[in-house]
This record gives sequence, structure tokens and C-alpha cells, in this order.
Amino acid sequence: MTTGVRRRMGVEERRQQLIGVALELFSHRSPDHVSIDEIAAAAGISRPLVYHYFPGKQSLYEAALRRAADELADRFTEPREGPLGARLLRVMTRFFDFVDQHGPGFFALMRGGPAVGSSTANAMIDEVRQAAYEQILAHLAVESPPPRLELVVRSWVSLAESTALLWLDGRRVPRGELELQLVHDFAALAAVSAAYDDEMAGILLPILADEPPGGPFTDLVTRLGALAAAVPSPRSAPLPAPRGA
Amino acid sequence: MTTGVRRRMGVEERRQQLIGVALELFSHRSPDHVSIDEIAAAAGISRPLVYHYFPGKQSLYEAALRRAADELADRFTEPREGPLGARLLRVMTRFFDFVDQHGPGFFALMRGGPAVGSSTANAMIDEVRQAAYEQILAHLAVESPPPRLELVVRSWVSLAESTALLWLDGRRVPRGELELQLVHDFAALAAVSAAYDDEMAGILLPILADEPPGGPFTDLVTRLGALAAAVPSPRSAPLPAPRGA
Repeated sequence: MTTGVRRRMGVEERRQQLIGVALELFSHRSPDHVSIDEIAAAAGISRPLVYHYFPGKQSLYEAALRRAADELADRFTEPREGPLGARLLRVMTRFFDFVDQHGPGFFALMRGGPAVGSSTANAMIDEVRQAAYEQILAHLAVESPPPRLELVVRSWVSLAESTALLWLDGRRVPRGELELQLVHDFAALAAVSAAYDDEMAGILLPILADEPPGGPFTDLVTRLGALAAAVPSPRSAPLPAPRGA
Repeated sequence: MTTGVRRRMGVEERRQQLIGVALELFSHRSPDHVSIDEIAAAAGISRPLVYHYFPGKQSLYEAALRRAADELADRFTEPREGPLGARLLRVMTRFFDFVDQHGPGFFALMRGGPAVGSSTANAMIDEVRQAAYEQILAHLAVESPPPRLELVVRSWVSLAESTALLWLDGRRVPRGELELQLVHDFAALAAVSAAYDDEMAGILLPILADEPPGGPFTDLVTRLGALAAAVPSPRSAPLPAPRGA
């Protein structure tokens, strides 16, 4: 019945189409520089019709952000099977896929685009951070995280955000290297905490014990050992030999 | 001549007084919840007179932010003498002094207060980040930082921000512990990068060589070595012995 004739979309279908079109445009240029006219043109409808579905650019932006936030939160979902290092690496690869795909929109959102300062947008960003935090906790199999673990996981989520933003600004380091680096950073931040807190050590040690020899965590430990051994001066030894006059 | 009579302040003096009063109020409650009436009352002048000096709350907020930003940037200034670990620890102590003193204002600013979304406020936040970045680079005595060093230093500055925000939200870990942890985190993030990049290793190794035995960096290395040795399973060894069926 619709062949050859432009089928009339239902309200929800049209809204979803507009969200998709807006998200695509926001993914290539900052939302500040995308007009409702362009969104209307890309969707093949008139400007007034866009306003029929969304009262203003802010509401369309927030709807696009909602979809992007759900998609980003999904990327942190990973089966709880196999060593943790490999799981985190898969998550980081999907995270950078997202950042790569939505670059300018992601950048604008996190660095002061039109939706920043809107409590709706801030609440959505926090939702994604919370989803990422809960996913990581689930992978650590810790139900009631002690405050130091919460701090390590939340600050690592924030480190992943800032690393992605720095990468977008020039892309001067290959993203594959940063994905692996963030997995290593997680281990490093957790190890720093565990080095000074027995409860954290009790959580981290069994995880490291489950890591295979070729995994990112054990590779890091081996390399850090080599790095520590390469420190040139005797001053780095715990008990330096007395130096003659 | 002014004894017993309220001296009339000059324009700039009055502006500075209002900025100080506003900053003090913003340091104890979120700027969203501080009214111009309160600022006027605390300064001992009328509400219309406040508007004479500042056209609106946003401009007063931005002036207060300007002063706070300058003050915060100053706290990253540290003489380039002695081991790096001890210098960073003094910087972190002054940073947490600032966060402690301006808690609610700092929190509101970084987590979506009234000035977020204002390009003036965002530019000031970026200035402070940039000042912190340049200070750290100066301490590393690196003039043209390779991209991986820039990434480590900038992402560490962002880690310090997020750690401070997480601390403000409940203060469940003593701040002194977090100040030291951030110094360790710096070493850990740099070491992760140096473990995979010769240029970074060339920058980090001489710094570690200058660290005294009791300093935060060598203490961390010793403790991480003990932690690595405590990993319980043979799977963590580089070449595990074959397991019998």
C-alpha cells in the first residue's frame, strides 16, 4: 500500500527518526553548530513539523542524548566470564568505538556544549557514569564496596572519560594503545590503593591470581618489575650503601 | 578622619569586598542557594547597591570564580627543589586545603552549578587545569612534552579533580590518605606509560633515580613489589609449570 508513496509515519516513529537524524548530525559536528533547519532537511520534513514533535532544539538534543547515553551504558555490559583484564579491554574497545563514532557530540557534551548546565543532561551523564561504575563492581564480584574501592572504580571511570577527551583532541596516540593503557591504569590505581590498604589487597589479589600469563595485568606486572629494576641510582634502593667522601 | 564613621569605599575596593563576601558564602553553600539579598546583607549594603557594582548574580559569581581560580592555580606553584614526590605531595596538600575550604562552591562549579554552561566559567576552569598542567611539566623539567607525557599529566590533573569531588561527597576516606594516593597515582600512571614506551621511560627513570629511600615513590615501588609477590596463584608467574591432569 505504501509503494511509491511516502508513507506517513506515526508520532513515535517520527520522533525516533528525528532523534536518529539529530544524533547523526551531532556526531559529526558540535550540536552548537547544527540548526533545526538542517535537522529538518536531513529528515526530509519542514522546520515547523520538527517543532511539532520537539518544542525546541534543547528537547531534541536531550532526546538524542538519552539515546546516546543508553547506547554508551550498554557498551559497558560484558559477560562475567574469563579473566578481568580481557573483559575490561573489550569494554574499553567498545567505549572508544562509541567515542570515535560520536566524537564532536561527545566532546561538546563533556566540555560544555548546549546541554551542559541543563540538569536533565547532567543527570543523564551521571546515569552513564553510575551504570559504568555498577558494571565494573559486578565484574569485581563485590556487593558492598568499601569506600576505597568505590573511589578507585569511580575515579577510573572519570579517567576513561578524560583520556577519551584528550584523545579526541588531536588523536596523537593510537586509540588501541589507550584502550590497553586504561586497562593497565585500572590495575595500577587498584594496586596503589591495595599497597596501602589490606581490605583492597584482599579484593585485588584473588583477581590477579586469576589472570593468565599473557593477559594485560600480568604483562604489566612483568614490565613494571623490569622498569623498577632499571632505575639507575643507588638512592632508589631501600638501604643505600654509604657513599665515600 | 574615618574613625567612628563608616568610611566610603572606592569602586574597586567595594567590588573586591563583594567578591570576598560572595566567595565566602559560596564556600559554605552552593551558589544556587545564595541570594543577592544575602550577599548584600553580609556586605552591609543594600541590594540595589550590589547591582550597581555587578549587573547580576552571574557576573558576581564569575568575579568570585576568577579570584578562586587564581588562588587555586597559585597552589600548584611549588619551588623546583628536592625530590619530585615530596613536591607533589605539598601541592596535593594545598589543593585539598582549597577543596576543603571552598567545598560546596567547588562542588557546584565542577558538578553543574550556575556557572556551568557559561563559556566564561568553563574558560576559567580550563585555565586552572592548564596552569596545573604547566606547573607539573615544569617540575618534570620537560620543555616539549611528547603526546604520551601530555596525556599522563593532563589525565592526572583530571584524576585529582575527580578524587577531590568524590572525597567531598561524604568524606569517607581521610584527605591525607588521598593526597598521598594522588602522588602515588601520578607515579603509577607515568609508570604504566613508561612500561610500554621508551621515550616515557627515558623521562621517568631519572626522576625515580632522584627519589630518596623514604620518599613516596620509593615506598610505593617497595610496596607494589611486595603486593606482586603476594599474588597467590602460579598462573601469575610468567612461565607457569604445566599442571597435571
